[in-house]
Amino acid sequence: MVAASSDLVPHPLDPLSQAEIQSAIDLVKKAHGELFFNVVSLHEPRKAEMTKWLEDPSAPRPTRIADVVVIAPGGKVYDALVDLASNTITKWELLDGLQPIITMEELTAVEHVCRKDPKVIEQCEISGIAKEDMHKVYCDPWTIGFDERHGNKVRLQQALMYYRPNVDDCQYQYPLDFCPIYDGEKKEIIYIDIPKVRRPLSKAEPVNYHPAAVEKVGGYRNNLKPINITQPEGVSFSVTGREVEWQNWKFHIGFNYREGIVLNNITYNDKGNVRPIFYRLSLAEMVVPYGNPEHPHQRKHAFDLGEYGAGYMTNSLALGCDCKGSIHYLDAEFPTRAGGVRTIKNAICIHEEDAGILFKHTDFRDESVIVTRARKLIVQQIFTAANYEYAIQWIFHQDGTIQPEIKLTGILNTYSMDPDEDTKGWGTQVYPGVNAHNHQHLFCLRIDANVDGPNNTVFMADAVPSEAPVGSPENYYGNAFFAKRTKFSTVGESATDYDGATSRTWDICNTNKLHPYSKKPTSYKLVSREVAKLLPKEGSLVWKRAGFARHTVHVTKYRDDELWPAGRHVPQTSGEPSLGLPEWMGDGTESIDNTDVVLWHTFGVTHIPAPEDFPVMPVEPITLLLRPRNFFSNNPVMDVPPSFCSTPSQVAANGAGVTDATDKLSKLAFTNGNGCCTNGTNGTHATNGTS
Amino acid sequence: MVAASSDLVPHPLDPLSQAEIQSAIDLVKKAHGELFFNVVSLHEPRKAEMTKWLEDPSAPRPTRIADVVVIAPGGKVYDALVDLASNTITKWELLDGLQPIITMEELTAVEHVCRKDPKVIEQCEISGIAKEDMHKVYCDPWTIGFDERHGNKVRLQQALMYYRPNVDDCQYQYPLDFCPIYDGEKKEIIYIDIPKVRRPLSKAEPVNYHPAAVEKVGGYRNNLKPINITQPEGVSFSVTGREVEWQNWKFHIGFNYREGIVLNNITYNDKGNVRPIFYRLSLAEMVVPYGNPEHPHQRKHAFDLGEYGAGYMTNSLALGCDCKGSIHYLDAEFPTRAGGVRTIKNAICIHEEDAGILFKHTDFRDESVIVTRARKLIVQQIFTAANYEYAIQWIFHQDGTIQPEIKLTGILNTYSMDPDEDTKGWGTQVYPGVNAHNHQHLFCLRIDANVDGPNNTVFMADAVPSEAPVGSPENYYGNAFFAKRTKFSTVGESATDYDGATSRTWDICNTNKLHPYSKKPTSYKLVSREVAKLLPKEGSLVWKRAGFARHTVHVTKYRDDELWPAGRHVPQTSGEPSLGLPEWMGDGTESIDNTDVVLWHTFGVTHIPAPEDFPVMPVEPITLLLRPRNFFSNNPVMDVPPSFCSTPSQVAANGAGVTDATDKLSKLAFTNGNGCCTNGTNGTHATNGTS
Ligand SMILES: [Co+2]
Ligand SMILES: [Co+2]
Repeated sequence: MVAASSDLVPHPLDPLSQAEIQSAIDLVKKAHGELFFNVVSLHEPRKAEMTKWLEDPSAPRPTRIADVVVIAPGGKVYDALVDLASNTITKWELLDGLQPIITMEELTAVEHVCRKDPKVIEQCEISGIAKEDMHKVYCDPWTIGFDERHGNKVRLQQALMYYRPNVDDCQYQYPLDFCPIYDGEKKEIIYIDIPKVRRPLSKAEPVNYHPAAVEKVGGYRNNLKPINITQPEGVSFSVTGREVEWQNWKFHIGFNYREGIVLNNITYNDKGNVRPIFYRLSLAEMVVPYGNPEHPHQRKHAFDLGEYGAGYMTNSLALGCDCKGSIHYLDAEFPTRAGGVRTIKNAICIHEEDAGILFKHTDFRDESVIVTRARKLIVQQIFTAANYEYAIQWIFHQDGTIQPEIKLTGILNTYSMDPDEDTKGWGTQVYPGVNAHNHQHLFCLRIDANVDGPNNTVFMADAVPSEAPVGSPENYYGNAFFAKRTKFSTVGESATDYDGATSRTWDICNTNKLHPYSKKPTSYKLVSREVAKLLPKEGSLVWKRAGFARHTVHVTKYRDDELWPAGRHVPQTSGEPSLGLPEWMGDGTESIDNTDVVLWHTFGVTHIPAPEDFPVMPVEPITLLLRPRNFFSNNPVMDVPPSFCSTPSQVAANGAGVTDATDKLSKLAFTNGNGCCTNGTNGTHATNGTS
Repeated sequence: MVAASSDLVPHPLDPLSQAEIQSAIDLVKKAHGELFFNVVSLHEPRKAEMTKWLEDPSAPRPTRIADVVVIAPGGKVYDALVDLASNTITKWELLDGLQPIITMEELTAVEHVCRKDPKVIEQCEISGIAKEDMHKVYCDPWTIGFDERHGNKVRLQQALMYYRPNVDDCQYQYPLDFCPIYDGEKKEIIYIDIPKVRRPLSKAEPVNYHPAAVEKVGGYRNNLKPINITQPEGVSFSVTGREVEWQNWKFHIGFNYREGIVLNNITYNDKGNVRPIFYRLSLAEMVVPYGNPEHPHQRKHAFDLGEYGAGYMTNSLALGCDCKGSIHYLDAEFPTRAGGVRTIKNAICIHEEDAGILFKHTDFRDESVIVTRARKLIVQQIFTAANYEYAIQWIFHQDGTIQPEIKLTGILNTYSMDPDEDTKGWGTQVYPGVNAHNHQHLFCLRIDANVDGPNNTVFMADAVPSEAPVGSPENYYGNAFFAKRTKFSTVGESATDYDGATSRTWDICNTNKLHPYSKKPTSYKLVSREVAKLLPKEGSLVWKRAGFARHTVHVTKYRDDELWPAGRHVPQTSGEPSLGLPEWMGDGTESIDNTDVVLWHTFGVTHIPAPEDFPVMPVEPITLLLRPRNFFSNNPVMDVPPSFCSTPSQVAANGAGVTDATDKLSKLAFTNGNGCCTNGTNGTHATNGTS
């Protein structure tokens, strides 16, 4: 397979190229002078227009439009659209009381200001840090969330303060107890939140994970032998521009500052019939509420996508390190604040992995058997949100399943504590003087469904016992159970929570197309078990701001530009009114029966920290499945070549004609001659394994 | 690493060797004449004795004792013990109203009897099968479960009937509608359950997954390039007898007819301190209830371990097929019914896999970064329970996590239906004429805990909001939440269910040992989200027989021989009284506070079939975690060599001194020259990834 040229006309859903970004910037600058560019990103084609073009390439090609957000001198914020074909600004709108996404450049400015601010220096001295050690003071700049004392007219950040005895130390081990507030327009500290009870800088010995520190306590383990993964004949996927084809799947990979990876036009070639499944899939928002009620910790509830951007924070990935095997990478291009363009090399990686057994069955009568191995295709990005890292994997399986998986790693957000202080259960002392507060990682998966076409209906499915009592004629032995299906006719009905007791799932159905055998609608089933409930209470600040997190599932009717469920501009929103999804749901009466729908799924974990998570966290994965049910006529992977297959007639013929394509590179772990491998000879499927 | 000799004196927990099995059989035969041997298996050493020997190898070595179950002529069943050192029968006990496990030989006998039975032939003719086609009639022999008409004095099986038009066809596509009952003593059919409404044999075209069938409909896909996985320098684990050491883990692998893999004496070497974690881990039982209330389908609720044995049904695994890479295998030895010994080659496989990223963190200030890759060790068996296959993986992670994972594949149990018949929601038509009934796969994980010693206490942990209302001084912004911990003081208190709303977990704690930083007891946390509730109702036949499945968790005080929670002899139990766990729980008042405890965890899925599952099911995985929490002083894997590490001081020095151990065999998927890989050059961690 070869990847084709990328110097074609861009696909309408391709991110803006370097040239396109620059051209939009130049045009805006020409019209409005010097500005800060917070966003210059693809304004996605209207779905109606896009769908026409997808169905008929001779239809007008959707034009390239740039979505631009700028901050003008004086802090005025404008939303703009630039038509790149005609080179015209088609929208220029002043926003009131809204703050655009915070860029990396805005974030990194805060630490430098803090170090020079006399009041911060004073607080550092109170904590026990000498003036001349201010270069050892660090801050993680966070959005302020919402602070009612400061509102949303002034562009603010809060500075979570830390110290490093040595430049290579982990500062999260030395948190400081005060919190400066930074004005991004003035570039100065306007306020400092200081707790009533002061906690001096920790004097504990540093714990670090860098080589010098590891060497000091005994060095690295030397008992890991290499595992080599190679594809000498190349990979099994092809890439044309940003369109990937693999194992009947075809999809386009978009990428934006906000959501990072966006998967578009996901189709599955079902025996020659190219069937649409999802129009657009992305992580659309997330929120990380912290559970310590003491002021000002309520401000710690990051909307990492809406406030900082999974695209803006994405890592440049390295071959053989973040990814192993045969990898294809895609870069990302973003504006700089001043109006240039920056490139993140290898922002996305794409590769295949062996995925164990795809299916197996042995007939116990004669040990005739089939074993077929599975593959998966992984499209991945990793982003760093200050202390935390999130590896986002979109995993495609051969059987039609799509598995979004998120791996949490990085470092806990920490706060200072006195060695004998009671954490009151709001956090855990993970190291002397280090309090890691309880928090949640809640993600919102946006599923723009297209199951066999745009008109879909969502049902809730609960596995429940029959209502008939034990001993009744309908359920004499009491074993009856079934899947109770509840149709969501309106937006209001769709706001539903996970129910572990019924193993609740949700089906995105095309009720216009029944399966020929089961007579059930063709569908994709959302199977998601890591679905921590939003723990901040109803009416709380987080509850108001993160409307999407109130329920596990919400369904809305599709409308262009309803992409991000905490609103288009998230920083410093008060939650009054709640922006995004709660607005779009309206009074809940809108019909979502057999129409173009979007399913919003909130999932994630509650994280009660433990010392094992510190000073750096071993990966914790969160996963869910989108599974075809009543979609394919039967098992869609029977044509994947088996590793081994023998039929009853072949077994009867002493193995003549069996299919043997076992991997010949696999080896016994231990060679003969050391006395172990009397047990180690190879079993064989061709004959009865018992003797 | 080399595997040492296995011809040492056996470890006290090693399964009986071929010679030991034979010697027990010979002794019993000599004393009691010709018998059928259903079980000849290791009678595990008493824990007190075993623990003494583990702690002090100069203590008396636990002797080898065989646990023997036989059926004598006339159907009399005896439980026996044979002391292999003294060659004496130390127990010989006649059982009343109990049936021992059904062997493979007993199972395979049924089909042959069915084919010759005149009444079965008559029923086949009614179904539309000619007398001369009886060799095309097949049956899956199942335990009868419990049928009140037949009780438990007579040893019975039920024969689920199928037909194959051709010997290589999948018989599950051609189910027959009647069900013969087989007497294992008489070796004859004693009754046939015949439905009131008859369903003739399906005339649908066969759907098959063997090569000839695939070739007929277009052939195999030819677009999968090989993925090679090799370990040229060998594996990173060592095996001494049946003891495995890998990445600070050490454990013994037992294996028996019933549970299959048993993991013993699991310890973790924590910086030189060998800490016990689990005394014994196994899948101890399972039940697969079917949800169709129509007679005789209530009998379909297989206890695959107790009634057939995960050991007895285990597959002989093949290199490069079931397992890929560098594999070590262990065989299994079992008695034959007549009193010989059979060997299952490669009953267990052990291998390492790359496991993606272990941890990663980038400092956004300077892009100093660490990326460390993870490994996992997998101990696996696969067993075939008639139509279904279960791949049982015990996955060890470097960070102290143990992850039992079960992969379901194989074929749905099916029943016949008329093409236009209403399944009433109790099943799905997965192919014309094929009704796959709703069912559950519920597994019971037995955790014999030993967290820093035998005296442990179990707590339930629920993530809940503070009770203080929004606006109150204690919870002004409403964001407060914490982990509510409930101690189980008595057996009765421990019977608890999963609660998805609180992301409920269970902690196995050593309350005698507090973590130096968190001040919480050292613990292992059970994190399990696939926890379908038992759907057969309270008081139902399944509920009575599968007492372990009534709740997600039960905890009992450890007692020798309390191993299998549906009882020692499961076939044909009535559930009155409920055997096993309900007996051991007694009146629930026994204290389980700070003592030797066993946690019984029931987990699994409800399976509402869909056509995608037919004629063979793509793997569906079920997984859970046992995670160290407050157990290690901090992240225990910081000494795993990183793939790449740069510190702030190294970044400041332009990369001098960075650790670069990236995998040099990884490659770009597409080479330069085809126009694609302007995007495909390798990112690098050493410099800022943005440009
Ligand atoms: Co966390
Ligand atoms: Co199933």
